[in-house]
Amino acid sequence: MAGTLADALQRVLRLADPPLLTVAGRTDAGVHARGQVCHLDVDEDAVAALPGRSSRTPPAALVERLAGVLPADIVVRAAGAAPPGFDARFSATGRRYAYRLSDTAHRPDPLRRRDVVWHRKGLDVAAMQAAAAPLLGEHDFVAFCRPRPGASTVRTLTRLQPRREAGRTGLVVLDVEADAFCHHQVRALVGALLAVGTGQQRPEWPAQVLAARRRDGAVQVAPAHGLTLEEVRYPPEAEVATQAARARRAREPVDG
Amino acid sequence: MAGTLADALQRVLRLADPPLLTVAGRTDAGVHARGQVCHLDVDEDAVAALPGRSSRTPPAALVERLAGVLPADIVVRAAGAAPPGFDARFSATGRRYAYRLSDTAHRPDPLRRRDVVWHRKGLDVAAMQAAAAPLLGEHDFVAFCRPRPGASTVRTLTRLQPRREAGRTGLVVLDVEADAFCHHQVRALVGALLAVGTGQQRPEWPAQVLAARRRDGAVQVAPAHGLTLEEVRYPPEAEVATQAARARRAREPVDG
Repeated sequence: MAGTLADALQRVLRLADPPLLTVAGRTDAGVHARGQVCHLDVDEDAVAALPGRSSRTPPAALVERLAGVLPADIVVRAAGAAPPGFDARFSATGRRYAYRLSDTAHRPDPLRRRDVVWHRKGLDVAAMQAAAAPLLGEHDFVAFCRPRPGASTVRTLTRLQPRREAGRTGLVVLDVEADAFCHHQVRALVGALLAVGTGQQRPEWPAQVLAARRRDGAVQVAPAHGLTLEEVRYPPEAEVATQAARARRAREPVDG
Repeated sequence: MAGTLADALQRVLRLADPPLLTVAGRTDAGVHARGQVCHLDVDEDAVAALPGRSSRTPPAALVERLAGVLPADIVVRAAGAAPPGFDARFSATGRRYAYRLSDTAHRPDPLRRRDVVWHRKGLDVAAMQAAAAPLLGEHDFVAFCRPRPGASTVRTLTRLQPRREAGRTGLVVLDVEADAFCHHQVRALVGALLAVGTGQQRPEWPAQVLAARRRDGAVQVAPAHGLTLEEVRYPPEAEVATQAARARRAREPVDG
């Protein structure tokens, strides 16, 4: 996805090489992103030239030109100049994901089959909610992460909320939000709650896994296509540089 | 779609030929159906044998077996024995469709691109609402139909409601409901309202087209993939036979 976007930017901005993109939330294959954010360094003149004789602003012209070359499954909603010190990844203060399941007896709505995972058996959402509550707050989530050597797995989980969607959609949605996530963390948290929802595990179990601080083979990483990155949050412009420095210090692996 | 379902039923029920299906709302290629209903005549013993040794009811076993052979874009939600005299098409007293558009500057959410039509220019939804109101009620909709010789084009339109969807989805949804629709009617009504929404036509125009009672070349039939049959309504069981007889009399072509 990032590669396709970089190629499109190269073409539209007439660059010698695809630009280097920094994305807010790197997503595994099959994971969707509705609210992804990325930044790149680009020559101001290249963007300023885009509107040509039209009355469009340069960012609006960039969005329109990208729409002309991107495949239908990638949409750039908006573009703009970033404030000094902005880093799409490290300036972010929060990421919000949604994981979507259907636990109806029949398969889910065909129009939603690409972002909804079918769970044949009915889920006990109240038990999942009980299991989710003690996971909130700042913890070392190493038990739910595929760790990178030297990198911290301490994160602050601010939301982990399984709920039945209103209306007769048959959907169970898990809203998950944290300052940042380590690799596989959202899908492993969802997998642990699913084990509770189906009755395989008791509601106390996910908190026990967390406290044990090591990967537990019984935690299944939930399928990728149910997961969507919905939103990335940033602080006010004046704080993006200090936030980036703070997050880099806390999360980057320590060399040597 | 009906052909694929008939083939699946043939296989699951071990019939010599694909059964004849009667569907509530025949949809053109590209139109979606979330709430389609169909009926077929089938040997009771063939259905009764489906659960085998399982504890499932025969209809539940039929749904599950169909799920095993149908492609992912067709889902059977439920099955059951129909009351005497039931006809999926003629017993129906109402059909509800939704037409979905996005009028944002960027293309719509990729996950919705199969059921949402992108309209590059912003729509004046209030003007569309004003244009829709006088079309409600019982009228001869021949101006919006591809007529069949001898068949009536009189229908009772009970809802034609353009609205912006709540939240930040960028969607404009048109809810359309009638006792029944003739061929192309929903998409032609939507096309007429779109001409108002973009300012090409005045809000009075669709009512003028209706009153003229002949096809108007300025009415564009809106693209198929924005349209979804959402729901088919039926009367209480005791009335399905008389409703079927009444609708057949009113809508079937007169022979000879």
